[in-house]
Amino acid sequence: MKHGGDLGAAIARHGGLAQDWLDLSTGINPHAYPLDMAPTPAAWTRLPARAAHNRLLDVARTAYGVPDQLGLVAAPGTQALLPHLPGLLPAGDVAIVGPTYTSHADVWRRSGRKVVEITSPYFEPSPDTRVIVIVNPNNPDGRLVDPKSLRHHAETMAERGGLLIVDEAFADCVPGASVLPHLEGVAALVLRSFGKFYGLAGLRLGFAAGPREITDALAASLESWAVSGPALEIGTRALADTAWQNAMCAQLADEAADLTLLLQMRGLSVFGGTPLYVLAGTRDAAGVHEALARQKIWTRTFDYAPTWLRIGLPGGADPLARLDDALAHALSTVAG
Amino acid sequence: MKHGGDLGAAIARHGGLAQDWLDLSTGINPHAYPLDMAPTPAAWTRLPARAAHNRLLDVARTAYGVPDQLGLVAAPGTQALLPHLPGLLPAGDVAIVGPTYTSHADVWRRSGRKVVEITSPYFEPSPDTRVIVIVNPNNPDGRLVDPKSLRHHAETMAERGGLLIVDEAFADCVPGASVLPHLEGVAALVLRSFGKFYGLAGLRLGFAAGPREITDALAASLESWAVSGPALEIGTRALADTAWQNAMCAQLADEAADLTLLLQMRGLSVFGGTPLYVLAGTRDAAGVHEALARQKIWTRTFDYAPTWLRIGLPGGADPLARLDDALAHALSTVAG
Repeated sequence: MKHGGDLGAAIARHGGLAQDWLDLSTGINPHAYPLDMAPTPAAWTRLPARAAHNRLLDVARTAYGVPDQLGLVAAPGTQALLPHLPGLLPAGDVAIVGPTYTSHADVWRRSGRKVVEITSPYFEPSPDTRVIVIVNPNNPDGRLVDPKSLRHHAETMAERGGLLIVDEAFADCVPGASVLPHLEGVAALVLRSFGKFYGLAGLRLGFAAGPREITDALAASLESWAVSGPALEIGTRALADTAWQNAMCAQLADEAADLTLLLQMRGLSVFGGTPLYVLAGTRDAAGVHEALARQKIWTRTFDYAPTWLRIGLPGGADPLARLDDALAHALSTVAG
Repeated sequence: MKHGGDLGAAIARHGGLAQDWLDLSTGINPHAYPLDMAPTPAAWTRLPARAAHNRLLDVARTAYGVPDQLGLVAAPGTQALLPHLPGLLPAGDVAIVGPTYTSHADVWRRSGRKVVEITSPYFEPSPDTRVIVIVNPNNPDGRLVDPKSLRHHAETMAERGGLLIVDEAFADCVPGASVLPHLEGVAALVLRSFGKFYGLAGLRLGFAAGPREITDALAASLESWAVSGPALEIGTRALADTAWQNAMCAQLADEAADLTLLLQMRGLSVFGGTPLYVLAGTRDAAGVHEALARQKIWTRTFDYAPTWLRIGLPGGADPLARLDDALAHALSTVAG
């Protein structure tokens, strides 16, 4: 599968209704930011107002710690920003530290760029490289690159008129992970996803912080009213809600630890992850994935790594117990 | 102002709160499609599913009468599609029948194209023209181009490897306006806005029907999950609700007639419009606009036409009476 989070393929192959399934194929927080305060009627009926858009940007700037000298742009999901990047950045090769989220390579290749996949973040880019893409923490393994190394890459690219892109989709609740506080005097483009940590992937909201000429050009490329009225209202409320954010980070850490323990008790080796998913190793990941799917639990495999299984947080004691039972059964049916 | 529908400028200049204002600066239906059935929790929390996206496209294809041979793509508003068009269409000049909605010229000029504004839709494009853009019915004057002439332009562009683009943002409730049923054997790209007729501009939803290679490329450019979960649910419901659509078209026709009569009784000449707004002429449109704004009624002027005033539907007897009183006062203060 290209991405997780769509039960269509699971249902087509194994049947059932969406509500029968436990979807652990994404890194989306199962505890969504509360929607008890519904969007106002005006959020639906009126064109999204510039003032409301600017309020969202102000709150996001504080929440993500974006330095004053960087610009900030909001989009209907970071995915909507990716296709605009190749046209805005100087010609040259693109180095992507991988394996990682595949959309980055897809977008740059589709634009005709030469994409070089680098396996270690501690590398010297080739002379033709003008763009470096690092997902940090990385998806799916959670590998973290230290801010000093990221800053070094940012400086190298800036000297060449290029740009470092850091995708921080899973940086929420990972203390010290974000490069944003370390960008004094040097620019990088940092992508932040709203939907994953706040558990509202259907809302479509994401941000990019970076050099003002790039964020201004991205805003122009997105045209007017890119972010929906409900996304403006809910995003502004959630990004300012530090009490919810802090409590949720503590809860996710507990749940990720519980999930890790469960998997290890069942004999899987957990060797990576973030607070929103874990990456486990098992001899025949595709076999375990299939055996879980027959029990209506959907996980994520990777064609480039036949032993990797990414598992999102079940979101409570009951679904955790369901996963435990299903996993015991699955492992009994798969060659060990 | 560049677009209507944002009270920020009105409030900055004339004060008040958003709820004090009667916003007639847009062509958005004041009677929104009912939201008493709220989006399901899954619409907010899950990534928008491919199956739900395809259901929306099926319903939209029927609602808009898209011929089988054309592709169809959904976007978070037609505005989000515009910046992707220049990269997908062959090099050459762009002829835009104007004056019209300004974003079309903006997008093509920003991409480096030569844009030629043509004042009559009945023209022979220059040899270098590869793209023709016609807004039909036109915004702001409501001018309609007959389907035969549109088909002729589509054929001329197709022979050159180019494309006719028809923006049908205000074609709902205008019988016979859409070129879609007349595109047998020839291609054009037709833009359809959801938010205007359904009164849900904050939702962000729009469509493009056209040659499959173009709609496929647009879908790829928009990347995964471009349309939000709530937009998928609400759009699918509303586009299938022919009872609501038919009743609303009748209601809008009545209200547009009432508004036209009111303006004419006050001495303004109504010379254009659609079921969602009227275009009136008056000696000093800017003066009337300002005098109405001092009474917290926001209308739309056009810098290229100092006698034009576009006025959206007030949406009921009370706001219509408020407009009438305010207009009487406004006209008494403006040089006749």
